Amino acid sequence: MRDFLNEKDLNTLNHSCAHVMAQAVKHLWPQAKFWVGPVVEEGFYYDIDLGDVTITDEDLPKIEKEMKKICKDGKRIVRHEISKEEALKEFADDEYKVDLINNFPDGTVISTYSQGDFTDLCRGPHVDTVKQCKNFKLIKHSGAYWKGDKNNKVLQRIYGVCFPTKEELEEHLAFLEEAKQRDHRKLGRELGIFMFNDLVGRGLPMYLPNGFTLRRLLSDYIMDKELALGYEHVMTPSLGNVKLYKTSGHWAHYKDDMFPAMEMDDEAYVLRPMNCPHHMVIYKSTLHSYRDLPVRIAEIANDFRYEASGALTGIERTRAFTQNDSHIFLRPDQIASEIKCVNDLILDVYKDFGFKEYEFRLSLRDPENKEKYFGNDELWEKSESQLRKVLDDMGVKYYEAKGEAAFYGPKLDVQVKSALGHDVTLSTIQLDYMLPERFELTYVDENGEKQRPVVIHRAILGSLDRFIAFLLEETKGNLPLWLAPKQVVVLPVNTNYQGEYAQEVAARLRKEGFRVDADCRDEKLGYRIREAQIHKIPYELVLGNNERDNDTVTYRLYGQQKQTTVPYTEFVDLLKKEVLDKTLSNH
Amino acid sequence: MRDFLNEKDLNTLNHSCAHVMAQAVKHLWPQAKFWVGPVVEEGFYYDIDLGDVTITDEDLPKIEKEMKKICKDGKRIVRHEISKEEALKEFADDEYKVDLINNFPDGTVISTYSQGDFTDLCRGPHVDTVKQCKNFKLIKHSGAYWKGDKNNKVLQRIYGVCFPTKEELEEHLAFLEEAKQRDHRKLGRELGIFMFNDLVGRGLPMYLPNGFTLRRLLSDYIMDKELALGYEHVMTPSLGNVKLYKTSGHWAHYKDDMFPAMEMDDEAYVLRPMNCPHHMVIYKSTLHSYRDLPVRIAEIANDFRYEASGALTGIERTRAFTQNDSHIFLRPDQIASEIKCVNDLILDVYKDFGFKEYEFRLSLRDPENKEKYFGNDELWEKSESQLRKVLDDMGVKYYEAKGEAAFYGPKLDVQVKSALGHDVTLSTIQLDYMLPERFELTYVDENGEKQRPVVIHRAILGSLDRFIAFLLEETKGNLPLWLAPKQVVVLPVNTNYQGEYAQEVAARLRKEGFRVDADCRDEKLGYRIREAQIHKIPYELVLGNNERDNDTVTYRLYGQQKQTTVPYTEFVDLLKKEVLDKTLSNH
Repeated sequence: MRDFLNEKDLNTLNHSCAHVMAQAVKHLWPQAKFWVGPVVEEGFYYDIDLGDVTITDEDLPKIEKEMKKICKDGKRIVRHEISKEEALKEFADDEYKVDLINNFPDGTVISTYSQGDFTDLCRGPHVDTVKQCKNFKLIKHSGAYWKGDKNNKVLQRIYGVCFPTKEELEEHLAFLEEAKQRDHRKLGRELGIFMFNDLVGRGLPMYLPNGFTLRRLLSDYIMDKELALGYEHVMTPSLGNVKLYKTSGHWAHYKDDMFPAMEMDDEAYVLRPMNCPHHMVIYKSTLHSYRDLPVRIAEIANDFRYEASGALTGIERTRAFTQNDSHIFLRPDQIASEIKCVNDLILDVYKDFGFKEYEFRLSLRDPENKEKYFGNDELWEKSESQLRKVLDDMGVKYYEAKGEAAFYGPKLDVQVKSALGHDVTLSTIQLDYMLPERFELTYVDENGEKQRPVVIHRAILGSLDRFIAFLLEETKGNLPLWLAPKQVVVLPVNTNYQGEYAQEVAARLRKEGFRVDADCRDEKLGYRIREAQIHKIPYELVLGNNERDNDTVTYRLYGQQKQTTVPYTEFVDLLKKEVLDKTLSNH
Repeated sequence: MRDFLNEKDLNTLNHSCAHVMAQAVKHLWPQAKFWVGPVVEEGFYYDIDLGDVTITDEDLPKIEKEMKKICKDGKRIVRHEISKEEALKEFADDEYKVDLINNFPDGTVISTYSQGDFTDLCRGPHVDTVKQCKNFKLIKHSGAYWKGDKNNKVLQRIYGVCFPTKEELEEHLAFLEEAKQRDHRKLGRELGIFMFNDLVGRGLPMYLPNGFTLRRLLSDYIMDKELALGYEHVMTPSLGNVKLYKTSGHWAHYKDDMFPAMEMDDEAYVLRPMNCPHHMVIYKSTLHSYRDLPVRIAEIANDFRYEASGALTGIERTRAFTQNDSHIFLRPDQIASEIKCVNDLILDVYKDFGFKEYEFRLSLRDPENKEKYFGNDELWEKSESQLRKVLDDMGVKYYEAKGEAAFYGPKLDVQVKSALGHDVTLSTIQLDYMLPERFELTYVDENGEKQRPVVIHRAILGSLDRFIAFLLEETKGNLPLWLAPKQVVVLPVNTNYQGEYAQEVAARLRKEGFRVDADCRDEKLGYRIREAQIHKIPYELVLGNNERDNDTVTYRLYGQQKQTTVPYTEFVDLLKKEVLDKTLSNH
């Protein structure tokens, strides 16, 4: 979102604005001393020592007001160059600046920038006058250890952002607000989808009742689709002997992303990062004839990867996750038709979810880093060109990306564009000649000879966790009826008079297979309606005497004011149709 | 099954029979040297060095024939006592006996037993004549390292069993045959329910497509029952920070049964042996009013316990398993009514599965080993007497078992009698005042004061893995229609003529929600029927021209000869009713 201006000029502007903020802070808290104020992804920040003062939310508008004054005043920004000795003298009573200056080699020419009554040590460059900094906004504040060291003092860090024009600033703020509304971590908490807890551990999500319902619906949805296409589901353990991963090659190529091994008896076990090895072992456990292929082994499988703490992001990036995975064992002559089958399934699923913006990425080996991959040039060239040809023959448009292949083979990744403009890899089709070799898999051909099958690794929803994060972001938590953990809330106008009818309607709807709550608490109707809105329940049924006496319901869709009264049976038909169509209730 | 005679006499008989077997082996292989021949659970065995000879299945009848001859000959069994020196002289050319004799202190009087041409070193006692040993059967053979040490020579171990009467022997052999037919490990393999593999690891089952289908049916069945009763399902991670288990007390009281910890960053994580701590954390994450209790958190949860290799038994005892678990948080005044609810659910489920023989066991603390448990005498007396009173008030008949409590509280275990006469703990209800204390859980009472809730831990199906083992044993793999992974197999008499109709019938049945295979392979009908029998598919549909032309089906139930022809629609109704009634197809 920061591509309004060229990156360099925008950075200069933001850094100048950081100085304006520092000047304002100095006006408000004369004891303020400043550490560093760099440009970052969010815009800029400054780390400030305010003595005993801790910045609160209420302080930000005060600082902004003072910044506006400074900008209006419109002082020029002037650069001075001084020697290290002069700098040490000038900033002698500021231990932070002294620390910075002492880090320069002797003889360095040091620059300072001044505007009106404010001077700071700075490499620059800056804009010409503070006037140019007027389109700013302070975003947030936090504490930050000096130099990032836990043993040091906590400084006050204030974040802001600055743009050349008011329009650009407003557009950016609207985007930030939108991103906040769509943040799956916020929505996940508000809608009771998941939670984290330090005692349980970092990156280990706990799915709450609404989250589990959503997971169950998604699992059932994709498993039933797969069953109809001849997939067979298995359930394999979350861990394996380290020998298994030595055989598969994960131990050599993927160990750094795995949890540490557990030593038991004379063996070592490790949490699995992927399911491929387990499925290879299942395929190998029986004889296969060429007539029985493809064999499609599928699993809703728990996997574990040792992501760095800093990389963990809600349920988008976790250490424990669940994949909608499958390994298809087939004859080489079946590759094209099977890739088409998988691709059809992907498109079918995207249609159900209403995903329309996506691109296909052909992910290839990085030829500069061959040691990261299995196998030889010949096999890679064969599988890459084979996958390319299949896509060409299918008429799929794709772009190529070197270095994005799996260590065992090239992939076709489906990159879906999110509502906030990110590209998210949801589905993947991978062609693998390596693992069948490593596990010595075979099938018996027409002539009774043993042949090596090929393996297609594929995921449709990808990780259920990341998929749910994506869904929440796309829908702002306003899930389509077929996926809403609670579909209907029944609200008697007055519990004393229509409470019984409300319970009866809820029970009847449940019997029809809907997920229904009746909110018969002794609270005002307005309060209960607001609660239903917060939980983004698609249908609110408000039931008064009229409804009770005529066996009708009055419904209101989430986010809409309009109320509609229909006979109960008509309402049931309406719900059934909407679930079947998989449409969004208020679209 | 060995309680015909008193245990001691039966052991003497079996040990004498071991000598008879040794004598027969010596007759057949004069080079035979004998190590030890103890009485064991199965009857008896003898470890034998036969030089280069390895015993095969074909050898057992030969040995039995020779044993019969010896028994018929009817020699007396005579005890001799000799000094250690004499023994060493007598057995000088037998290194096994020399090894045994050298283990006796000098001066020991050593006994030998002789019958006809056979003498062996033996403490005794023995029966009077070999005639008494005639009701025997050799059961199996295996290799066994001398002294159980892998670096030693492999000896031939032959197992047998002996009874005072022919009737008792026959009854025992029939029981063994029945146990073999019901062995869930055999059935699990034959029916494609699960497999194990050394590369994946010991005690880590892999569920094959039929097994996964069964798991999915059972999970859906119990979750839907629970949902209707106000349970809320969650999904929590398979591991947790070690701090979590220190808080819960598992680290102090259960560590030996847990997998080793994994060190990560500055923390340690461990695979969870139980789900209680995760559920405590979820309860604690929000405020609870006295009006909202009971809160029933449920999970189909993966757990991991470090069972000794020797204790692992199919899917009955594994290192990775899945529990049908729940923790109910309630006010003390709700204990009696909630235990009744849980008990009603147990009885309801048992009715669906047709379990009729079960007992209630009140599992109490072992007062001699208080250090194995949490908390103080007062709390234990309170919770034990409370649980006892609830059971008495409910009129439940139970027996008490000291030392069977959980470390955090007393339990009501439901002990179901298996077809082979074992008692299996399927369900459990546990009363817990300790974990709410450890996790400092609260609810707000009528007066706005914080109070401590009580927790009921409960499992209905227990471990899904053990439950499936139990089901297989109970049904001999002949699962009721609602649980059969494949319910119907459609067999065209001749694929060329009725193949299309068979596929159409299969598709129509699938659309009705049934699990159906069509076997249209180019194989004889008889062969395909036998295959269906092996897989114990409840309904075989044999379709000829007659069926095709009249839209009828001819069905045969598993294990029965009778064929019945009915219109297609009538068959669908019949299946639907049977699924709904949860009856066994051929009962």
